Amino acid sequence: MRCAVIAIGDELVTGTVVDENSAWISDRLLAIGVPTTLHMTVGDDQGGIVDAFRICGERAGVVVVTGGLGPTEDDLTRDAFCRFACTETVENEQALEHIRALFKAIGREMTDNNKKQAMIPEGATLIPNPLGTAPGFTMEVEGAAYYFLPGVPRECHAMMEQSVLGAVASRGERAVFRSLLFRTFGMTESQLDQELKELALPAGVRLGYRAVFPEIHLKLIARAEDDNQAGRALSEAGDLVRSRVGDAIYSEDGRRMEQVVLDVLKEKGMRLTVAESCTGGLITKRLTDVPGSSQALDRGFVSYSNPAKTEMLGVPKEGIEAHGAVSEQTALAMARGAVERAGADLAVAVTGIAGPTGGTADKPVGTVFIALADAGGEWCGRFNFLRADRTFVRELTAQAALEIVRRRLLGLGQYSR
Amino acid sequence: MRCAVIAIGDELVTGTVVDENSAWISDRLLAIGVPTTLHMTVGDDQGGIVDAFRICGERAGVVVVTGGLGPTEDDLTRDAFCRFACTETVENEQALEHIRALFKAIGREMTDNNKKQAMIPEGATLIPNPLGTAPGFTMEVEGAAYYFLPGVPRECHAMMEQSVLGAVASRGERAVFRSLLFRTFGMTESQLDQELKELALPAGVRLGYRAVFPEIHLKLIARAEDDNQAGRALSEAGDLVRSRVGDAIYSEDGRRMEQVVLDVLKEKGMRLTVAESCTGGLITKRLTDVPGSSQALDRGFVSYSNPAKTEMLGVPKEGIEAHGAVSEQTALAMARGAVERAGADLAVAVTGIAGPTGGTADKPVGTVFIALADAGGEWCGRFNFLRADRTFVRELTAQAALEIVRRRLLGLGQYSR
Repeated sequence: MRCAVIAIGDELVTGTVVDENSAWISDRLLAIGVPTTLHMTVGDDQGGIVDAFRICGERAGVVVVTGGLGPTEDDLTRDAFCRFACTETVENEQALEHIRALFKAIGREMTDNNKKQAMIPEGATLIPNPLGTAPGFTMEVEGAAYYFLPGVPRECHAMMEQSVLGAVASRGERAVFRSLLFRTFGMTESQLDQELKELALPAGVRLGYRAVFPEIHLKLIARAEDDNQAGRALSEAGDLVRSRVGDAIYSEDGRRMEQVVLDVLKEKGMRLTVAESCTGGLITKRLTDVPGSSQALDRGFVSYSNPAKTEMLGVPKEGIEAHGAVSEQTALAMARGAVERAGADLAVAVTGIAGPTGGTADKPVGTVFIALADAGGEWCGRFNFLRADRTFVRELTAQAALEIVRRRLLGLGQYSR
Repeated sequence: MRCAVIAIGDELVTGTVVDENSAWISDRLLAIGVPTTLHMTVGDDQGGIVDAFRICGERAGVVVVTGGLGPTEDDLTRDAFCRFACTETVENEQALEHIRALFKAIGREMTDNNKKQAMIPEGATLIPNPLGTAPGFTMEVEGAAYYFLPGVPRECHAMMEQSVLGAVASRGERAVFRSLLFRTFGMTESQLDQELKELALPAGVRLGYRAVFPEIHLKLIARAEDDNQAGRALSEAGDLVRSRVGDAIYSEDGRRMEQVVLDVLKEKGMRLTVAESCTGGLITKRLTDVPGSSQALDRGFVSYSNPAKTEMLGVPKEGIEAHGAVSEQTALAMARGAVERAGADLAVAVTGIAGPTGGTADKPVGTVFIALADAGGEWCGRFNFLRADRTFVRELTAQAALEIVRRRLLGLGQYSR
């Protein structure tokens, strides 16, 4: 059994609004063992809507449709489906009662166009809407079951959970899908592929790649007859992936890099501080995104100018003059100053040229120094993030700094890109 | 001339990732007068991909395709298109040269599967990728022009802007669409709608809303016979919108809040500094996102703990003990300390409870104090961003802090939410 999802609305197809319903619906359907193979988005145009019904019904046994059920002129979904299914709308007493009750509850008068929402195609079954006036409905046409839901995300979600998932599940023929997500950093997509493409994965397991800059996520999806079989296949496949690219994997449970770093710090009872130049607060911002981060991070220094580096962190003025603000010496002095002034156990410092201007022949845009200082000593690496884009350089620098901290804390080998 | 957009990838169709490329592409095409009427999303399956090419080519003169151009096994777009267009891939010398140069620049070895990216269908024209290894290509099949781009958003966007929009525009038969984007902050969508819903907009002009947390963007789209007519209608509609909700509009030219703030600072030759507690670097990060921000911002203080507030900013320990870290007194002392220690013209300081824990009956999660200090004096406001979500509180706090700075610099009335 396969599924198709249709989203209806001019605002979606012309790009004013991003359709998030279709991905959400597909994700929920996969969780009950029904994979989605097609999404279509069409505007408020009866011909286009009917066309989408036909295309999807020919390709999938289940078609979920969102949008176009409201009370206004541009809500055409009902009429288009009647044309497609050769039927007519009829007033549904249960739906009308529900709309009346809702209007009564908010003390407003019900208008005539609200009554239109109680009309559903003859032969269809009502899908109640616990959160709004527009009911949904379901009907089978030529072997495919169509489910109609409002486009308002919270109503659509509630009706999927309450009515549609159960109805789809009872149509039978479902496989079991289980998945495992590896978050990686430090290898490119093609390097990962080089290592992984000849893996003999167990039957029913597929490996997918997704670039989520600056990371690559690997997802194993196992399809099997039952949970046990899927779990075994996934576990075996996971071992194979780890044996090849384990060093690049920093999380297997969905945790982000900043969360992983904070968890290790808390486990070790250590406190980190951050001194930032080119990233301008991004590293500290990422760490403080995590609830409870104050246990392991109590301050950060954004020292953008040379005087700021000297005054906030005690970086010697002469050192900056001799070696430049973007240098190993300055990065190390920033890290030493930060760890000392914050009374922390470990400091990470970054200084670099994020661009678009400021590059030189020696130190082009994308040149970054990342330094660590702790009781055990200090370390500095030079990186060349040679792409033109300021955001790219800043995000890659922040990610590399966190990875360098993670590797230091876990006693892993040095990070080198 | 109409357009269809196809997105390819298992992660999209199964709902792991929301496809944002298709909406972005449609929005940009509409801006040059080419409306999109259909989006399709299919998985990494050659049959499904070919099917989508056929369906879209039969319905639109322009088909833009994203995804599946990478170097890995599940990147099937090229081969599927060859099957559809009855052609074969050939090595493209220009693409290969570009990939070689990129690998050389970052000092990495080029793998064999990277070479695969230099293969494009025979008869197709290369679309250069200024930001990555995967080139795009374009080819006409049975009267429809297909444009292939990588799924990585920044690469896809750059190639649309640099190559595809011009190529589509030169295909002719376009209506004139012109649009005007108002970025607003401080009014809810329903407050804006209340003010704007009865506006008598000129013929051919539509007003759309889009919530881009924590802002609402208003978009006027004028469709007309020619540029002059569209310009006049848009100008008239813009005046109407400004007359109703002008106070909430902070930008009409696409500039973000941080850019607007920096532009005013530079114009006045002033320097800002930032002292952050609950936002943990987010405000400074946003300001330093903007190229050239160092002219107007030379440092920032992330003082997360009480000792950090005292040591970095000179906030009296006794004051924190008496009033709490989240208080008007502490916020004002942070701002005073920051403006003095940074030698800046203006400081903004924030302290608050971002959650999920740390709230009290007096100061629930979402309680935030934002203070300003400059030569003219000092000011502090208390805000209640009463929602459960940490990200929500932090982003709203950062946005409000920037808006407060903007209003102070421009001598506008005080911000109050």
